[in-house]
Amino acid sequence: MNYNKLALELHEQFKGKIEIALRDRENLSVEKLSAYYTPGVGAVSLEVAAHPEELGRYTWINNLVAVVSNGSAVLGLGNIGPKGALPVMEGKALLFKYFADVDAVPIVINAQTPDEIVDCVCAIAPSFGAINLEDIAAPQCFEVENRLKAELDIPVMHDDQHGTAVVVLAGLINAMKVCHKDLNACRAVFSGVGAAGVAIMRLLKNYAPGLTLMAVDSRGLISTHRRNLSEAKQALLDDGIIDGTHEGTLSAALVGADIFVGVSQPNIVSSEDVAHMNDQAIVFALSNPDPEILPEAAYAGGAAVVATGRSDFPNQVNNALAFPGIFRGALDHGVKMITDEHKKAAAEALAALVTEPCAEEIIPSVFTPGLVAAVAQAIT
Amino acid sequence: MNYNKLALELHEQFKGKIEIALRDRENLSVEKLSAYYTPGVGAVSLEVAAHPEELGRYTWINNLVAVVSNGSAVLGLGNIGPKGALPVMEGKALLFKYFADVDAVPIVINAQTPDEIVDCVCAIAPSFGAINLEDIAAPQCFEVENRLKAELDIPVMHDDQHGTAVVVLAGLINAMKVCHKDLNACRAVFSGVGAAGVAIMRLLKNYAPGLTLMAVDSRGLISTHRRNLSEAKQALLDDGIIDGTHEGTLSAALVGADIFVGVSQPNIVSSEDVAHMNDQAIVFALSNPDPEILPEAAYAGGAAVVATGRSDFPNQVNNALAFPGIFRGALDHGVKMITDEHKKAAAEALAALVTEPCAEEIIPSVFTPGLVAAVAQAIT
Repeated sequence: MNYNKLALELHEQFKGKIEIALRDRENLSVEKLSAYYTPGVGAVSLEVAAHPEELGRYTWINNLVAVVSNGSAVLGLGNIGPKGALPVMEGKALLFKYFADVDAVPIVINAQTPDEIVDCVCAIAPSFGAINLEDIAAPQCFEVENRLKAELDIPVMHDDQHGTAVVVLAGLINAMKVCHKDLNACRAVFSGVGAAGVAIMRLLKNYAPGLTLMAVDSRGLISTHRRNLSEAKQALLDDGIIDGTHEGTLSAALVGADIFVGVSQPNIVSSEDVAHMNDQAIVFALSNPDPEILPEAAYAGGAAVVATGRSDFPNQVNNALAFPGIFRGALDHGVKMITDEHKKAAAEALAALVTEPCAEEIIPSVFTPGLVAAVAQAIT
Repeated sequence: MNYNKLALELHEQFKGKIEIALRDRENLSVEKLSAYYTPGVGAVSLEVAAHPEELGRYTWINNLVAVVSNGSAVLGLGNIGPKGALPVMEGKALLFKYFADVDAVPIVINAQTPDEIVDCVCAIAPSFGAINLEDIAAPQCFEVENRLKAELDIPVMHDDQHGTAVVVLAGLINAMKVCHKDLNACRAVFSGVGAAGVAIMRLLKNYAPGLTLMAVDSRGLISTHRRNLSEAKQALLDDGIIDGTHEGTLSAALVGADIFVGVSQPNIVSSEDVAHMNDQAIVFALSNPDPEILPEAAYAGGAAVVATGRSDFPNQVNNALAFPGIFRGALDHGVKMITDEHKKAAAEALAALVTEPCAEEIIPSVFTPGLVAAVAQAIT
């Protein structure tokens, strides 16, 4: 189904997707107005000025996330700028509220360099309880996230990286059960080494140190023989995340592999490629909306489990499975930094929601009862 | 009444004052989610990226104001920083929603210099439909507002300056009727030449060029004999806003004056000072919560009309009379810049809401039916 027409109609009908509401739903008497605003609010401000750590006790930041983007890598649309990004960020705020009762404000910024982005987010950070970075292009996103995590005392997470990584790990945990494999004994080949690819590989290797990872970019396998690698790619080699001993093409790397993960571009994997993978091959073709290989073609090649980013196929790798619960948990439990331990626990919680994993169901639906609470419990 | 206890209780009970709500109140089906977020929202983003001027057609910015402060001049509390300022800014967002159904988001920023403030606000400006600057110290507030008005294509207003000025002008329009005076033939003496004082004087002089203005700061009357005046004070002389031919004290300046406006500090005007003013003296003692002279003392000195900033006396000069309607009007009418003409029209609209002005009622109540709509109609 093409949602474009419905999307334009709904956005125009409601003139946007979110609005402000008052927590106190009663009529506001003169007394209450004098307590919520001047002169009474002065006592609250003095209390917070003296004890800044109590800001969340008296203001909405206890439940508040900023969804921050500069619009440099929006969906599959590329660098469409902050205004173009706003409908997506407002949509994310809608999901935050709908699924997790988290208040989220879309903040799209005129900022290109990491310095500009970091300066802006640090400047506005006292207004929020957490920062969800979104649709910021690689490699800038890596520096931006690392610097903000170091500088701010509230949780910061680039969802394109880590939300995706959590859901992929959850899917692979259940795929292992379906295929009777051990992730520590598998070999996985990645296509795409952008924001999502790097974060997924790092989380998988942290979760299963015995997993062998290989990664292909537009120039082929990333190996120690390559020169002029980007900082993020070189770090994958230096940190021992990927096996850099081989050179060659994606097709060659897939021969005998257990797992394919694509976060790259449409139609670059064939049925024949999948046929050359190991028995019980697992294919995560996450390029959206057009995957690296369609499920039908992957199954024709002998795949045992296939996941995509699409809602019209089984096993949708959907960030909305992860970020609402992750931020719900971080806010509720006073978590100041979202760590790899949190992400692994969140992935395990997601995987456990599928009571009987099978080829058609390794990943829960976003409508699974208790999903947000289960993920939130992992973030402590 | 002391509202401190109630304020702390209410803020803690509700854990803040505002939250996010969804405009579409129905259960969100898979279809709607796919239209509000990916994949459908991509069509909206592409439409906006191609036609940025249509951002307000599809996103909440058509109804959205940022309430921005660096916390450098909060209420009477001074520079208590961004976190200390947040309860006040969230309170302002509550007033925006309650009185005018305007969505407002409090943005408190770690930024001290005009450069830092301007850079930050310009960076986040694509996220909003208008900017309400709040509680930014003079003289930085003047440069910040002027630069933002020049650089941004959305309305920017520093409410401490212009909201106050609109309400004071409204009060004086009706005070003239009560006292049978002509503003163009009056002499007014100001105590306080900060953000509010400067803006009020400039608006009054624009409205009534025949009005004679004198202004006193901590060193006495501002005159052409003074050296090392701040840029804002010197500009009042250079622009012919104030009469700089006299030197001396506030008490001396008040002899024979028609109007006193205080935006300075408590208890600096005596009954005797008021007794030396012209007949039918008008006293606006706006220092809050403790005015320059209490109404009882002003009346004892023969004042005909007294206004304060307090809700427990008649004639409260309350910014909440102006800003909700001003921004409601600017958003509804696509106004890109709030001008002196808008402010004068808003003041006249406010004044006209008092059908029979008298000493005890020159300024309408914030609960006056139709108040916001009347002010909004002036902003076209």
